[in-house]
Amino acid sequence: MQGDLSRPSRAAVEAVLRGLSRELGEHQLFTDPDLLEPYGRDWSGAEPVLPDLVVKAESTADVQVVLRAAQTHGVPVTPRGLGSGKAGGCIPIGGGIVLSLERLNRIKEIDRENLTVTAGAGVITADLMQEVEALGLFYPPDPNSLKICSIGGNVACNAGGPRALKYGVTKNYVLELEVVLANGEAMMFGKRTIKHVTGYDLASLIVGSEGTLGVITEVTMRLVPKPAAIQTALVSFTDAEAASLAVSQVIAGGVVPRTLELLDEEALSVIRKKTPGRFPEQAGALFILETDGATEERAFEDLARAAELCQKAGALEIQVAQDAAQRERIWEPRRILSLTLTESAEAKISEDVVVPRTQIPQLLRAVRRIGAKYGLRTATYGHAGDGNLHVNVLFRRAEAELGQKAVEEVLKETITLGGTISGEHGIGLNKRDFLPLEHSLPKLALQRALKATLDPHHLLNPGKILPRRGPTE
Amino acid sequence: MQGDLSRPSRAAVEAVLRGLSRELGEHQLFTDPDLLEPYGRDWSGAEPVLPDLVVKAESTADVQVVLRAAQTHGVPVTPRGLGSGKAGGCIPIGGGIVLSLERLNRIKEIDRENLTVTAGAGVITADLMQEVEALGLFYPPDPNSLKICSIGGNVACNAGGPRALKYGVTKNYVLELEVVLANGEAMMFGKRTIKHVTGYDLASLIVGSEGTLGVITEVTMRLVPKPAAIQTALVSFTDAEAASLAVSQVIAGGVVPRTLELLDEEALSVIRKKTPGRFPEQAGALFILETDGATEERAFEDLARAAELCQKAGALEIQVAQDAAQRERIWEPRRILSLTLTESAEAKISEDVVVPRTQIPQLLRAVRRIGAKYGLRTATYGHAGDGNLHVNVLFRRAEAELGQKAVEEVLKETITLGGTISGEHGIGLNKRDFLPLEHSLPKLALQRALKATLDPHHLLNPGKILPRRGPTE
Repeated sequence: MQGDLSRPSRAAVEAVLRGLSRELGEHQLFTDPDLLEPYGRDWSGAEPVLPDLVVKAESTADVQVVLRAAQTHGVPVTPRGLGSGKAGGCIPIGGGIVLSLERLNRIKEIDRENLTVTAGAGVITADLMQEVEALGLFYPPDPNSLKICSIGGNVACNAGGPRALKYGVTKNYVLELEVVLANGEAMMFGKRTIKHVTGYDLASLIVGSEGTLGVITEVTMRLVPKPAAIQTALVSFTDAEAASLAVSQVIAGGVVPRTLELLDEEALSVIRKKTPGRFPEQAGALFILETDGATEERAFEDLARAAELCQKAGALEIQVAQDAAQRERIWEPRRILSLTLTESAEAKISEDVVVPRTQIPQLLRAVRRIGAKYGLRTATYGHAGDGNLHVNVLFRRAEAELGQKAVEEVLKETITLGGTISGEHGIGLNKRDFLPLEHSLPKLALQRALKATLDPHHLLNPGKILPRRGPTE
Repeated sequence: MQGDLSRPSRAAVEAVLRGLSRELGEHQLFTDPDLLEPYGRDWSGAEPVLPDLVVKAESTADVQVVLRAAQTHGVPVTPRGLGSGKAGGCIPIGGGIVLSLERLNRIKEIDRENLTVTAGAGVITADLMQEVEALGLFYPPDPNSLKICSIGGNVACNAGGPRALKYGVTKNYVLELEVVLANGEAMMFGKRTIKHVTGYDLASLIVGSEGTLGVITEVTMRLVPKPAAIQTALVSFTDAEAASLAVSQVIAGGVVPRTLELLDEEALSVIRKKTPGRFPEQAGALFILETDGATEERAFEDLARAAELCQKAGALEIQVAQDAAQRERIWEPRRILSLTLTESAEAKISEDVVVPRTQIPQLLRAVRRIGAKYGLRTATYGHAGDGNLHVNVLFRRAEAELGQKAVEEVLKETITLGGTISGEHGIGLNKRDFLPLEHSLPKLALQRALKATLDPHHLLNPGKILPRRGPTE
């Protein structure tokens, strides 16, 4: 994918560097290839691309300086939070500048009465969570990467996580964003109030736009009171289809769990080898069910009600964690699952599809069928409660082409089932060329027009989200 | 404001009518002034403007026909749900076509397992609520106009309501929209899944755009389980400042009530005359507090906790409704308050400002000060829990200019306090020229550019939201 975009000329890079040197400190500009190297990759598995320079902004004004200079010299800018993206969204495929926001890492304000937190884009999500929880407040969105991702990156990608089932995704918590546009203008989008209907919803346009429409420098997020109690249970079933039918029964029964994480047969089998003795022997598949509430009684009542619905739906066994240690014992395998799957095969493509909850059994069947067709292992796990499943296709390096074909079929099947090809990872680079599976040409054209309106010179994270034009466009 | 926009020529109107006659039925096209008259007004108090014709669409295809014909002949189109808007958003100030969506009034599907409802844009919100509640589900957003407004209009204006405090506003429930663009193309924006991050968030761009970027023809909204129990209490205070301080205490205390509706001194005094004996004599101001939950115990526990916090914050008296009749007795005065205020003065301007919750006392003081300065009565009430207050300036017709000045000062003060000039009514026509108080020129320019991208010929609800350009723009 490297050949996608032409890089800026040597002269343009030197000119932009000279310009930036006049306005920024030496400690903010990096051109040494060794120092550039980590800024050419992310957690997506996409092939790294070395930028021409890395700029570490230390203020909104710095970001404005970079974007103005980039525009003057026609050099592309790839904004970067902490580089934990799973879709290649911050790989600088057009070279030029990687604009790192990692130093915008200050929590500016936690407003306990109005329930908001204001933070620089580079604040680590887990740090933000910890700070607000220390005050009895709660920031619910919990991407698995929370210890290594930034809140600005979460907003740019509209990150999800297991708790989205009960609490929603990042966009449901965005109140106000400070954004620097491609022309260097800084603006506030949204408002720190819960209600706000003055003009177009510019904040929502930026959320999930993966740095292609503007650079997020500061965020104000809504908080909620911290739930006082959590209950956790491991619920086993004969197979994943039985488990996923139970998922629908629980939700339709009026319980809204905090999380409902499914592991299918292959995922369970792989993780069993790594963490023996954790799971009931007869379990073919399982889910981790978690409820929370303002009191112990409420969390437990909800768990009991969900357990009853699971039993009716054919659960084999329900283990309820009695303390924090048991809770951790249930969660640990889920946490290391992605890595364990990666270790279990030479190559892995991990998708992030979503289908309406009731279509999960159909999706599971389709994934198995596609795996069998290409003779490849597949493992599916994830946030079954909201229909968001991580479908993993595992293969040997020599089978890469088959792996790609299998993935494409999974994506097509997802769309046929009324689903979407990305629930929380985003499109970035890796899924860019699959977007036309889901979006019509006029819809792609509309998005290109919006991109051109906000970034007329196509310098902001070029080559991301929107696929290259087809021959008929 | 009528002179704002030039109307289409007689020839253009005749041409578009001829075109439409070929593709639509006679029962869908109206040109008789008597029949046009109700389509020239809304609930905002804005001066009515007669359209040249009214088209009643009966399908998405009809909407496409209208927008294509309008484009061909350069005739403006003002989309209209049920005309209950409070900001003049559907007054056809440029003449041309009023495109009524009232006949798109079918609830297409209620999906009990995936918790969604799909409905035509013209479905009455209360009807939709009733249908889903009959199945044990719940659509929370509850604009006061719910019996006379449409779900499509709610989405177009991002309607709020008292329950927004706990449940959020309309945009938090939008999953998928069918939208017809200015060029007549129909597209699906968003997805019926909870998570969805493929491409730009086009659905959110349409939400709250008041028919200026596209015409919403069908919506799929997220539902939640219906809370089994509700508790209602009337909490009185010496004055509105004491009441609003208690509001912050309740929320900061970790209780999230379903509603928290404040009535200030003047609002209480006006409604007392109409509904004598409903309120404690010593009350200077009050709020209606409501909690809900999955069980009676939970709703009551939350109410008890909130009541305790209110008492600590100086509440004079707390009356808890013991049954549905008592509950209705508490709510009825609030429901008729807007109308009662209208009757109490020759003229009324009702604003819809929002400030951060902790700034409510400052806002109340400012409103009183501004009222005193101009010698006008003011009454403030509304959704104090989320900081959204309806500030009413009451005056005699002869004092109209003073009324306008007072309103402008209230809006400026709101912005100074970190607030926004509209929380749920929208900008439409009535607040259009106040938007520059809140939005900078570059931010207005960006919104104009977005408008031009989606509606290059400026035919969709022209003259709304975005103010006329100033002399320096």
